[in-house]
Amino acid sequence: MNSTRGSKLLGWSAFTILVAAFTLLPTGQSQPSPPAVNCDYIDAEVNSYQPVVDRIIAAVSQGGHFQAHTYSTLADFVDKFGPRMTGSEALENSIDFMVKESKDFGLEVWTENVTAPKWERHFEKVTLVKPWKSDIPVSTLGGSVGTPQGGITAEVVVFKSFAELIDKSNLVAGKIVVFNQDFVSYGETVKYRSKGASVASKYGAVATLIRSVTPYSLATPHTGHQSYDAAVKPIPTACIAPEYAEMLYRMYRRGDGPVVVSINIDARNVGTTNTRNTIVQIRGRECPDKVVITSGHLDSWDVGQGAMDDGGGAFISWNSLVLLQSLQLKPRRTIRGILWTAEEQGYVGAIAYVKKHQEELKNITVAMESDDGTFTPFGLSLKGSPEAACILNKVLRLFKPINATRLVQSKYPVGSDIELFQEKNIPGVALLNDNAKYFWYHHTRADTMSVLDSDTLDLCTALWGGVAYILADLSVELPRT
Amino acid sequence: MNSTRGSKLLGWSAFTILVAAFTLLPTGQSQPSPPAVNCDYIDAEVNSYQPVVDRIIAAVSQGGHFQAHTYSTLADFVDKFGPRMTGSEALENSIDFMVKESKDFGLEVWTENVTAPKWERHFEKVTLVKPWKSDIPVSTLGGSVGTPQGGITAEVVVFKSFAELIDKSNLVAGKIVVFNQDFVSYGETVKYRSKGASVASKYGAVATLIRSVTPYSLATPHTGHQSYDAAVKPIPTACIAPEYAEMLYRMYRRGDGPVVVSINIDARNVGTTNTRNTIVQIRGRECPDKVVITSGHLDSWDVGQGAMDDGGGAFISWNSLVLLQSLQLKPRRTIRGILWTAEEQGYVGAIAYVKKHQEELKNITVAMESDDGTFTPFGLSLKGSPEAACILNKVLRLFKPINATRLVQSKYPVGSDIELFQEKNIPGVALLNDNAKYFWYHHTRADTMSVLDSDTLDLCTALWGGVAYILADLSVELPRT
Repeated sequence: MNSTRGSKLLGWSAFTILVAAFTLLPTGQSQPSPPAVNCDYIDAEVNSYQPVVDRIIAAVSQGGHFQAHTYSTLADFVDKFGPRMTGSEALENSIDFMVKESKDFGLEVWTENVTAPKWERHFEKVTLVKPWKSDIPVSTLGGSVGTPQGGITAEVVVFKSFAELIDKSNLVAGKIVVFNQDFVSYGETVKYRSKGASVASKYGAVATLIRSVTPYSLATPHTGHQSYDAAVKPIPTACIAPEYAEMLYRMYRRGDGPVVVSINIDARNVGTTNTRNTIVQIRGRECPDKVVITSGHLDSWDVGQGAMDDGGGAFISWNSLVLLQSLQLKPRRTIRGILWTAEEQGYVGAIAYVKKHQEELKNITVAMESDDGTFTPFGLSLKGSPEAACILNKVLRLFKPINATRLVQSKYPVGSDIELFQEKNIPGVALLNDNAKYFWYHHTRADTMSVLDSDTLDLCTALWGGVAYILADLSVELPRT
Repeated sequence: MNSTRGSKLLGWSAFTILVAAFTLLPTGQSQPSPPAVNCDYIDAEVNSYQPVVDRIIAAVSQGGHFQAHTYSTLADFVDKFGPRMTGSEALENSIDFMVKESKDFGLEVWTENVTAPKWERHFEKVTLVKPWKSDIPVSTLGGSVGTPQGGITAEVVVFKSFAELIDKSNLVAGKIVVFNQDFVSYGETVKYRSKGASVASKYGAVATLIRSVTPYSLATPHTGHQSYDAAVKPIPTACIAPEYAEMLYRMYRRGDGPVVVSINIDARNVGTTNTRNTIVQIRGRECPDKVVITSGHLDSWDVGQGAMDDGGGAFISWNSLVLLQSLQLKPRRTIRGILWTAEEQGYVGAIAYVKKHQEELKNITVAMESDDGTFTPFGLSLKGSPEAACILNKVLRLFKPINATRLVQSKYPVGSDIELFQEKNIPGVALLNDNAKYFWYHHTRADTMSVLDSDTLDLCTALWGGVAYILADLSVELPRT
């Protein structure tokens, strides 16, 4: 997931609150909100789906025909293509592959063109030069410019916050600024990654090294999106492993002598690239124009395998359709699986989709996206009306056999790409899961299949596919706000 | 710590059992062993030390003159010198620094020369070439030879065990062998790191990549010692992050096409180097020839900061003496703090010490070493006689104020360097601490000050120094077996 685009939509402080709240919710610390309205009229109808849910659960359980299917298809996929950054051949090849696989499973499938910014990472090396020599684990940030030939070698100044930098801005010119901000939450802290270079450049910094935005590290640097304010000179910017930001901070504060770092980055913004959203669907048997979207993004950063972010979300969405198809479950309305492209560059695929499908938005009854991990599922989070919550709460009770009955109502948009639909008052649904370690792996080389568990993915697919089916088949749509 | 030398002393299976047992013990899962003998004669005398223990604890507690001293001296040290590999200027400079610091604190101090093997890491890069291109997080193993100019590019064969390799040895010639062994325990699993290259080379492998020996990783490769059997051709050997060993294993087993990896390592064995054990002492007031050794090793691997392994152990040992000195506590016998050198190359400093001090071994009443982490202290582990355990158990009761009263009696040697003393029937004592994550950081770039906590280090120093003082001052010595 990428959560920096929100800054453009909402401005900084609203965005900060939004993502902070969002980030806290899926950890499961929040309590289910009691439905504020009565929707008992739907009880009997919802309960009539228990046999369908039981069939779905049986399919992914021991001996079921779909058991381990999500893990094995995802492992095959990420091992075949590796990470899938926007602009890469790997991403486009992986899209072609998903089209073919979808056809092989008898699903309706097509792609829609998207133009997205293209950025390339060619080389990165950050070295402590004084007081002693050591490589510093680093990951250049998406959108960063490179260093001049020969790199940049300069003293560092290290700050804990933007406020501290501004307070001591006279120290910044000609220096490499290191931000050693504390990790509060992803939403609260990510501003250092996304805006650190712009803030430091304003005062004459020659480069920025930012503590990776994570609560835990084993010398693990995290990449991610950043953008330069129009008014500042773009300077090279990268995240370093938190331990090394802390080390530089101690050295700098001690004042025993200059702390010198060398940065050598070859990274380039190379215009735009053509990419595609991949759209797979099971056409509704009664109201084919009415659509339940279930989604994840197929693109990833260029490190690791993009298995968790967002291979897991994309594949529980895609496999939900494959599973329903294999069970010959054809709902009243259409279920449309969307594998977004260029999410990491700021929901670029979703923006293109919404623009192209402006006229059809009224027919989208709910937009689901899993982009916060596919660990043990607890239930769902919803941004929607109280009556939508009331109905979804009843639907989730059907998933008691897999202990995934919890509904969290969010004041703020859920998911990532689907924020755009929630802005249009379409109910948004995300997967509530045991994702406390999500940001340990996020945008790192540790985002590999080793993060994921086959049985857990089965449960996620069962919940995700089952809910999509019921929402697409119920006599009523989830009421909008 | 380094635990491969045991193989030379004990042969493989005994060594495996030894280290497996050892590794389990300090996690605190074992129960304290009840003393098998009666030593109530010592009760009154031991209890008379409660005021001393209370003074020591007060010194490291809120407002005490020694509070945070261990953390701050260690942070200053590792930030000043960085990692301290045998053969490096950093190690020798850090030894000079410790000599000067010890003098400044009024401690008796000297060094003793040691000749140790020298190995240098200059460059390492491992790349997945097929089916797609990606860097693989790697750390070359100590003692490894480099690759020829231009590196080695070859198909991989991946095995879960030595047995599987031997079973399929016809597949090995000309290939890069990857070991993707499961992690059982450090002691059980480290043989793949220390002997993997020799086993694979025997069948014609051109290089080995070994899954890092750790229960958990965030794309974190671990270095460590390895040695070649005399009969085999030395081949380049390195550990890779576990996630990538798992990935290569999946790819290889799937058999979709060749899995090709490129290895480029510049590493060299460059003969021997001169280094030094650093010896600091508080001379005994009555029996100066009788010695309690308290120790840790000052050398480290060349990655990270060597803060946990074994900066923590070295600094609680050294600070124990500084603390006792500052409290003007001069025991009956001598307390000798030893900062071992070249531990990571196979207890080389300790071997030199034992050889040089052969005649004095009879006067060493107990050998203490902290080289298994300095996390929250639980108490001590002991390899010694039942009567020694009985006495130490009573001594530990004095540390109830800091909840560090647990004694674990080990059948196998405890510590690392001090194994050599235990072979001579000298009681061995190690720090029992909350080190369940020790091997997450061990021999990695994540071994930095961020692993350590100031309050916890204070408790470790109080326990370690207090026990050393009491054992050096009691009217009786810990009885040998």
